[in-house]
Amino acid sequence: MAETFVSMRNLKFLIYELNNAEALCAYPYFEEHNREIFDLVLDTALKMGTDDLYPRFVEMDREQPTFDAGTISVNPWLREFMAACGEGGWIGANAPFEHGGQQIPDTVMVAFRFIFGAANYSASAYPFLGTGAALLMISFASRELIDTYVPNIFAGKWQGTMALTEPHAGSSLTDLKTTATRTDAGYFNLVGQKIFISCGEHNAVNNIVHLMIARIEDAPAGIKGISLFVVPKLRPCADGTLESNDLICTATFHKLGYKGAPITQLEMGEHGDCRAWLVGEENHGLSYMFQMMNEARVGVGAGATAIATAAYYASLEYTRERAQGRPITAKDPATPQIPIIEHADVKRMLLFQRAITEGSLSLIIYCSNLIDRIHAGPAEDKERLELLLDFLTPIAKTYPSEMGILSVSTGLQCLGGYGYCDEFPLEQLYRDIRIHPIHEGTTGIQGMDLLGRKVTMKNGQALMIYIEEITACIEKAKGVEAIAAEAQQLEEALAQLQQLTMHLGGLAMKGEIDLFLADATLYLEYVGIITMAWQWLWQATVSETALADCDTEGDTNFYMGKRYACHYFFRYELPKLQGLATRLQQSDGLTLSMQAKYFED
Amino acid sequence: MAETFVSMRNLKFLIYELNNAEALCAYPYFEEHNREIFDLVLDTALKMGTDDLYPRFVEMDREQPTFDAGTISVNPWLREFMAACGEGGWIGANAPFEHGGQQIPDTVMVAFRFIFGAANYSASAYPFLGTGAALLMISFASRELIDTYVPNIFAGKWQGTMALTEPHAGSSLTDLKTTATRTDAGYFNLVGQKIFISCGEHNAVNNIVHLMIARIEDAPAGIKGISLFVVPKLRPCADGTLESNDLICTATFHKLGYKGAPITQLEMGEHGDCRAWLVGEENHGLSYMFQMMNEARVGVGAGATAIATAAYYASLEYTRERAQGRPITAKDPATPQIPIIEHADVKRMLLFQRAITEGSLSLIIYCSNLIDRIHAGPAEDKERLELLLDFLTPIAKTYPSEMGILSVSTGLQCLGGYGYCDEFPLEQLYRDIRIHPIHEGTTGIQGMDLLGRKVTMKNGQALMIYIEEITACIEKAKGVEAIAAEAQQLEEALAQLQQLTMHLGGLAMKGEIDLFLADATLYLEYVGIITMAWQWLWQATVSETALADCDTEGDTNFYMGKRYACHYFFRYELPKLQGLATRLQQSDGLTLSMQAKYFED
Repeated sequence: MAETFVSMRNLKFLIYELNNAEALCAYPYFEEHNREIFDLVLDTALKMGTDDLYPRFVEMDREQPTFDAGTISVNPWLREFMAACGEGGWIGANAPFEHGGQQIPDTVMVAFRFIFGAANYSASAYPFLGTGAALLMISFASRELIDTYVPNIFAGKWQGTMALTEPHAGSSLTDLKTTATRTDAGYFNLVGQKIFISCGEHNAVNNIVHLMIARIEDAPAGIKGISLFVVPKLRPCADGTLESNDLICTATFHKLGYKGAPITQLEMGEHGDCRAWLVGEENHGLSYMFQMMNEARVGVGAGATAIATAAYYASLEYTRERAQGRPITAKDPATPQIPIIEHADVKRMLLFQRAITEGSLSLIIYCSNLIDRIHAGPAEDKERLELLLDFLTPIAKTYPSEMGILSVSTGLQCLGGYGYCDEFPLEQLYRDIRIHPIHEGTTGIQGMDLLGRKVTMKNGQALMIYIEEITACIEKAKGVEAIAAEAQQLEEALAQLQQLTMHLGGLAMKGEIDLFLADATLYLEYVGIITMAWQWLWQATVSETALADCDTEGDTNFYMGKRYACHYFFRYELPKLQGLATRLQQSDGLTLSMQAKYFED
Repeated sequence: MAETFVSMRNLKFLIYELNNAEALCAYPYFEEHNREIFDLVLDTALKMGTDDLYPRFVEMDREQPTFDAGTISVNPWLREFMAACGEGGWIGANAPFEHGGQQIPDTVMVAFRFIFGAANYSASAYPFLGTGAALLMISFASRELIDTYVPNIFAGKWQGTMALTEPHAGSSLTDLKTTATRTDAGYFNLVGQKIFISCGEHNAVNNIVHLMIARIEDAPAGIKGISLFVVPKLRPCADGTLESNDLICTATFHKLGYKGAPITQLEMGEHGDCRAWLVGEENHGLSYMFQMMNEARVGVGAGATAIATAAYYASLEYTRERAQGRPITAKDPATPQIPIIEHADVKRMLLFQRAITEGSLSLIIYCSNLIDRIHAGPAEDKERLELLLDFLTPIAKTYPSEMGILSVSTGLQCLGGYGYCDEFPLEQLYRDIRIHPIHEGTTGIQGMDLLGRKVTMKNGQALMIYIEEITACIEKAKGVEAIAAEAQQLEEALAQLQQLTMHLGGLAMKGEIDLFLADATLYLEYVGIITMAWQWLWQATVSETALADCDTEGDTNFYMGKRYACHYFFRYELPKLQGLATRLQQSDGLTLSMQAKYFED
């Protein structure tokens, strides 16, 4: 196994030098915190990651959860782990004090979760699925529901989940069939099925609490008739004991990767006795769920980045140690072979990985910082930052996921045949990361969300704010010699983005909605590249300033590495905009006029 | 499991309508053949694929070969399968009659192997590794060696392998250490180790015959001192029995995919009694091996194409059956959901797969047709066709492998969460195909081969021939209305290729070899896209002519599908040249000046 799976130096660079996390402590909500506390949080994550999670990375893949008569048995250490996460306060760390949380900024907690994800993505799913479910309850559920469930989830005793998908309703949630029938006892009776529910059943906790969407018997059709419920596996009785809630796990899925976390199929109400408690108002369920979903989408991007980061460090370590070949211009076989990190093409593969992973992480931490500022910052900034976060969410979900796959694949390639073998972690990371463009909304769905919803909402305001933020970054970078040319390049790309968006918007105005959205996935890819270029320009601007005052060799190497990775991105990745722009301008409806029968042969 | 894994209609289109395989029968070497025989060969492959190989596709993945005390036990059916391949004459099918072959053209046999590969890539490795080893012996070994080994390999009784890689000598073969010491008994004594040898040991045959490279004790350093040997696991005695040859299997590797075929580590001469018989002349081993290797490289491209084709058909079937969502402009939830193949983004994903897989297969069959024409056609064409094949080999190896991975990944994405689960074949295909950019020379090695060797050899003659062939295709396409614009696009791309190659060649002339080759991988990617555009323009030209005379709905759909796939390639894939060209023109040496220490943090 490789020794390193994350860089604390890089995390602290992003958290403090770029996003100035300490400034958050000026807001009343975070006033009890300071950098020492943040560092302690990060150091704890690294210690737990190194001592507990990473050593079980392989074992949890090889020895998968087993299903037997409705019960899923997982790695026994997970019970200990959930308890430790509960005792340390990590599951509820960014919840308010009043609900047992610690009010730690998401800017820091996203890094905590990232470290866990890099060490062992499957293990990290358990506690942080609970975080999402609990925060959703805190936002919208009654005090009674919160008091019943949240403390147990935060303690790591109960598992929280998010249960949306049904066999015939995946991307199309409007078609869900799970039905809730009113009773006069304060709860609903639920009947239905859910599939692909992560950690929907396992024996590392005493109970499972599903935040589940369903349709109330007389609700309107479509997404306007979806309500959100709390549906526990075991329901708490008045005397504090737990009794069966007629919710059973009927299957677990065997998957390509991410094997340490069980993905389950659930059946509710087989005996007519599955009770569900409404969260918030009837028929508002999807909008509540989307609060959780949006953060979950950034979380998927963070998870993908974590896996790709572990792969990057594993391949970096290998390329330093593996001797093979000689310089192109000095091939005398009598001389010793050189470490492959000295070959230009290997450096290209490492720079690609660094550009993808550190660019993605930069975006993820930026989004988390937006979440903190929306939550705790000045009220007058809130709307602007919310629009920006809304716009960035499909990008933060997709770019790290799609490009993370290529990044891990490149890491695997650095090891040649060894990369394909399970003695090294690359092949597992390659399997683990493949889920990310799928769960919490596929890439196709994200493309439609960006172009069809985010670009057009509020008369294009979100896009305008996005462009303003990038423009401000460009203006600063223009004055920095080592990256002035890159600043110029991004300015031109941004102008092209506006022109392209006008072109596509023109189609929408003419009512050609199909054509407008036909290449939404490519538009998302295009905006993803611009977003990464922005993050890299920003990183390089900060790095170059630091480099000027730098007095240690370690720091010099680090900042020089940032300069090269930024240059790499602008020279190898940014030019990909050209081909995408060419296609996006064509709008010829090729995929619309293509007929299903032409695929017959 | 999906029902379809290949399209016979498409194979016959490529073999007969494009490459006019029947014309080969005019050459004396192939004069005993005709289309009926070729069809019989293809039908047999489909029957064996459907009845025997495809039903074991999953089972051979789940129940991997087991290693115990030097012996590897594989799926018991493989012994039957090897015997059937031997009895059918398939292992030696394209060998000369005089060596027990059937002189079937490679144009047809590559399709045979492709069908097997699509049905079950791991199973297909066993017989056809033997084919390569036997053909290598037929080309260069003594009659005595041929008579001892080849009939047994062709009969499926003995396994043939290719044994190059050593623990410290993978990409850098010049560093191999296995040593052959002369004896006066007509053989050499061998001592050394090999790793990553496919099918290097297993119990589905009675013996394993390695075509192995090694260094003779007093040989010159480097690649000029490499010799080729036949090294059997059991050596034939004068009385016809077999005795141990002091060659043992010491390990098998556990891999991401391709699990049905054992990849082995071998140790030779532990007891000083491993005998090796020289093939051809001393110190000429690498050039002999490269004959086999070049065909093996096209074979890797064929294998990748086969896997990606199976993935394409599996995803096509799913998208036709899976109902999810509604048309963008008719979202009434009261209406039934539509099959996802009706969504534009899904059609885009299917067209991508079709463009990659059918474009790759077209190139593979074209290369095999070149092999046949070189071997059996007029002597005056030989040099030209050889140069063309040399030029195309790294492309035919790499494009299908690299893009095949993305194609399978796109197929998996079409299935959403189900694609990630092992109930569907996509996740296995995704694992199986990942080996192809690695084995038989990594993508980095292929890039150096194309730009550093193939472009420059014989004063650029190979590149000129390549351009002439494409130009001839463009000229024909210009007269065809539906693709005249595409012909124009390719003409412009070809002009840019020449300009780019001049630019890079200029660096080489100035002696800046490091800079010349720094982005060789990108150059390979660039030429790969042009090559695919050529193959698609050619397919579309033939299709449009056929479409004009078409009288069945099935044919109309097929040829219309070709038109759309061609248009897809030119509108979505060809524009990628722009970004690559931008980078290739920069030649700023970014990856050369990047220092290993800048990766430290």
